[in-house]
This record gives sequence, structure tokens and C-alpha cells, in this order.
Amino acid sequence: MELSSEVKLREVAPRDGFQSFRDFIPTERKLEIIKSIAEAGVKYIETTSFVSPKAIPQLRDAADLMAKVPRQDISHAALVPNLKGAQNAITAGVDQLVVVISATDVHNRANIGRNIEKSLTDLDAIFALAQDKGIKVNGAVGVSFGCPYQGDVSEGEVFKVVEEYISRGAAGVILADTIGMATPTRVDRMVREFRVRFPGTDFVLHFHNNRGTAMANLFAALLAGATSFDTALGGIGGCPNVPRAAGNLPTEDVVYMLEDMGVNTGIDLEALIGAAHLLEKILGYTLPGQVMKSGPRDPKLAEKICLVSHNL
Amino acid sequence: MELSSEVKLREVAPRDGFQSFRDFIPTERKLEIIKSIAEAGVKYIETTSFVSPKAIPQLRDAADLMAKVPRQDISHAALVPNLKGAQNAITAGVDQLVVVISATDVHNRANIGRNIEKSLTDLDAIFALAQDKGIKVNGAVGVSFGCPYQGDVSEGEVFKVVEEYISRGAAGVILADTIGMATPTRVDRMVREFRVRFPGTDFVLHFHNNRGTAMANLFAALLAGATSFDTALGGIGGCPNVPRAAGNLPTEDVVYMLEDMGVNTGIDLEALIGAAHLLEKILGYTLPGQVMKSGPRDPKLAEKICLVSHNL
Repeated sequence: MELSSEVKLREVAPRDGFQSFRDFIPTERKLEIIKSIAEAGVKYIETTSFVSPKAIPQLRDAADLMAKVPRQDISHAALVPNLKGAQNAITAGVDQLVVVISATDVHNRANIGRNIEKSLTDLDAIFALAQDKGIKVNGAVGVSFGCPYQGDVSEGEVFKVVEEYISRGAAGVILADTIGMATPTRVDRMVREFRVRFPGTDFVLHFHNNRGTAMANLFAALLAGATSFDTALGGIGGCPNVPRAAGNLPTEDVVYMLEDMGVNTGIDLEALIGAAHLLEKILGYTLPGQVMKSGPRDPKLAEKICLVSHNL
Repeated sequence: MELSSEVKLREVAPRDGFQSFRDFIPTERKLEIIKSIAEAGVKYIETTSFVSPKAIPQLRDAADLMAKVPRQDISHAALVPNLKGAQNAITAGVDQLVVVISATDVHNRANIGRNIEKSLTDLDAIFALAQDKGIKVNGAVGVSFGCPYQGDVSEGEVFKVVEEYISRGAAGVILADTIGMATPTRVDRMVREFRVRFPGTDFVLHFHNNRGTAMANLFAALLAGATSFDTALGGIGGCPNVPRAAGNLPTEDVVYMLEDMGVNTGIDLEALIGAAHLLEKILGYTLPGQVMKSGPRDPKLAEKICLVSHNL
């Protein structure tokens, strides 16, 4: 079994997670989490979105947050829906932008309120501004592995959007399984075809766990040559209905698995588990992450581990 | 990607799940679940354990339950800790027995109250009785992928127990990741070495999800040639502390993933989701299964699926 010796994890809890929580999390609490994550060794954070506070009030402190986050050795990305968002994000000092278009028109309209064609037109000004300011833009493709309205989504539909991103000078591409429909064979095919079609283009897989397949999908992607993944501390996010089990891949579970397989993440698992416990305390409900409950692979933790007699 | 065209799932919720729930579930409720599972097409059920009611009061109705379960086209297995349990199970009409020994002495003592050597001696009478009555015996190896006391467990330790089972005439072997320490590379190695060492021997993988890796482990095992897995409706079991997120692999999530990859399980996913909802109602807490919340891959379910604006 040949695996990459190293993987890059983008921490999306501050954006994808915090926007999904029902309440506004105070900026100081957000900062505590971001600092804990950074101290555990996370280098890439999707820190917030610069969107209308009417659309996502949970992230209305985006500019204030960006002014206070730790910056050393950390790249902060922010999601922006339009030129105004991109301007605000760049003014606030983000390192990278993320723009989003769905692979299907019907989902793009539901998510962003316009069709793909109109979204693409809007991109031109964002890319021009970012290039002028020397800021990287990453293009995310929503519902890359399945759409709640259309059902199956073809590689062709996904790659059409990817081509538009690349032709505008995108630094990287994010393939998102927005509603958690992917399975390993779909992921394997997508990653292999992507690498053939866009050799040398950086790409990230963003898996939601709505159907329990996210970790298997990550492993399939890794086998197919993917080396970058979006994950969220505690497994939060992915869906606005909180508390709820489905979410992003829990960063600490992914770190546990990858490091045990000899794949370096550069992240300290015990420190990350501490950050997850802090997050659980702040949010006030039981998070989906598992390693934060069971602990790392350490026999010293035996007494914490549940035992039942006559079990397998 | 080469996958088996068919996989056999053993449903362990009635044994591993019900023994983990804090309360005794009335026999009639257990029967409702077993009937629902059977109607969905499940053919192999680990139905109960024949253990001391003092040790596991939740399963004290084992004989009564066995007298009432649907039998047509279904194989009922029961876990037995000793000769008395085997006698009771056979008298009650089970089709197969499951015996358990841990791969490490220290865990065997914690789980069963004696060392491996003593457990092996006890097996002789169980196998003799079962052979006399024409009942198959399956040998489960606990902590096959990691032990809470010892840490790592070698293939050698696991295979030593497997050899003891096979030499006594076991019909099959169950390799159990009792506390959810396995990761895909460990599983890959174990399955490939098992197949080389014991060609033609039936084996089942039993994964707990304590560290979020169970579905990735199942996929890795499938790639390595495994074709039988233990799963539990709704993802219950695995740990006696309920409610709790970690458990067995949710049968319905596994069926979703396998069928989407073209691997036949013989199980009707929608019927199984119905059974999971019934189980959730009976137990009265939110189960770990995901497909039972998000639904199958069906665009008709769009309105049930959470949408948040400006999301990936």
C-alpha cells in the first residue's frame, strides 16, 4: 500500500463549523479556538467568510476576528461570495480567498442565488482584484459528488467549473461533497481523472459525513494520490442544524488515522484533542469527533476505556 | 479498483447493541427489531448471548427470544462464554455459536476473567458438544488491532488464537477491533496475511468506531479481499456507556456505501432505514447512524436535506 508521506490539512471549523452553530460565538471564544489549533501545529485555516451579516450573522465579526488572529506560519483563508466580500477580506488581511460555485445550476441557485453562468461572470472582478493585491484565490466546486436536487453529478460537470477556475488563475481547487453523497469508488475515479486532466494543479477534498462515508472517502482519495483535505476540529459544521451528528471529518480523528499509517500531518494529536475539548466546552454540546472521547492509541488510557464483559 | 461483487453482513445489534444499552429491552421490542431487520433482507444475525444474567442482565431473555425469532432463511448466532452457555444456546435452537478469546492475556482476563490458556482448555468441551449436535462454532479474536492495556497487538498473537480455533474445527473466524484502534494500513496487512496463512478459512471483520476509522477500515479490508463484516443497525453497541457516539459500523451506512460501489449486500436500504428509525424510537436517543438521518442517494429527498447559504 503506497501512501503519500505527508498530507496537508486545512482546518475549516472556524468557517464551516462556526457558521453552522445556531448562536453567534463571541470573537474572543473564536480566537481561543484558533489559537489552540495553531498551537497544535495547524498551518492552514479557513478562518471565516466575508458575507452579508444578514445571510450569516454567526460570522459578522469577520474583519474584527482577522485583525486578532495569530499570523505566524499560518495561512488564513476566507470564503467570499462576491467582489465586495473579496474587497473586505483583502482589507482585513486574509492570505487566501475561497470562492464557491456548485457543479449543478440548481444547487448553485439554492446556495448562492444565481446560476453558474452568472457566478462565473462575477469571478472575473474577484480574480482581477486578488491578482492585483497578490492574494491567492482557491476555487471550490460544491456538490462535486452528488446533488440533492439532481442526484448524480458527472466528472464533466465538475471539471467544467474547474477549468473556469484554472483559466482565471486559481491557485488551487476544492472539490466539495456538500451533502455527503460520495463513496470511495466515486472519489477514486474523481481524483484519478482530476490528476490526469489537471496535472500539477493543487486540489483539496472537502468531505461531509452525512452518510457515514467521509473517512472511507478520505482514505480512497489518499490511495488515489490526493494530499490535501479539509477537516474540522471536533467534526463540527457541514450542516446548519446543530446539535447533529453529521459534519466535517473531525481533524483529530484524521490526524490519528494518518499518523498511525505513517502519514505526517505536522499536527500534535494530544494538543489537538485539548483544542477539541475546549471547543466542546464553548459550544456546549457533544461533538461528533471520536478520538476526543476515546483518546489516542495509548495503553496508559486503559482505565478510561469502556469495558463490558463477554464482548468482542 | 477491484471489489468483491458481493458482501455478507452479520447484524450484531441484537447482541452487541442490546447488551450495551443501560436498560433491559423487553423481548417483544427486541423481536420487533429482529423482524424488521429480517424483512429488510438480513440473513445473518448475532441474536443474543447465553451468559449469566448477573453478568449481562440485558440479555437474560436469550432462550425466550430464540424461541420466538423468525427462522426462515436466517442464521441465528449466539455468543457463549462457556460450556453451560453453549448447552443452553443449542437447547434454545441457535444455528451457530460464537466463542471469544482476546489476542492478549491481559485483555482476556479483563473481559472473560481468565487467561488465554484457560480459555483454550474450556473450548474443547464446547467444540465437542457443537460437533455432536451439528452446530457451527465461530471463533472471535478480541483486541485483534490494538489492546487498551498492551497497546499494539502483533499478527502473530492474533494468528496463534486463530490456529487454536481452526485446529478445533471452527467454521469461521471473527477478527474484532474491540476498542476501535485499527487503521486502514493495519487492516490491510492483517487481512492479506490472514488470507495467505489461512487460505479458504471464512473470516469476518468486526470494527468499532471509537476513533472514527471504522468505515475506512471496512473499505481497506474490502480492498484486501475481505467479504464478511459485522455491522449494527443504527451503529449501536461497541461500548456500554449509552448514549454515546462510538459504536459498531451502522448497517444502513455500510449498505449505502457498498451498494453505491456496486457491491451487493442483498439488503433493502429503505427498509433497513425504517428498522433503524424503529430502533431509535424504542431506545429513545439519537443513534450514531448517518444514512438514517440524511436518507439514501435520492434527489426526491432534497427538501429534507439541510442547506445553508454560501457553503461548500
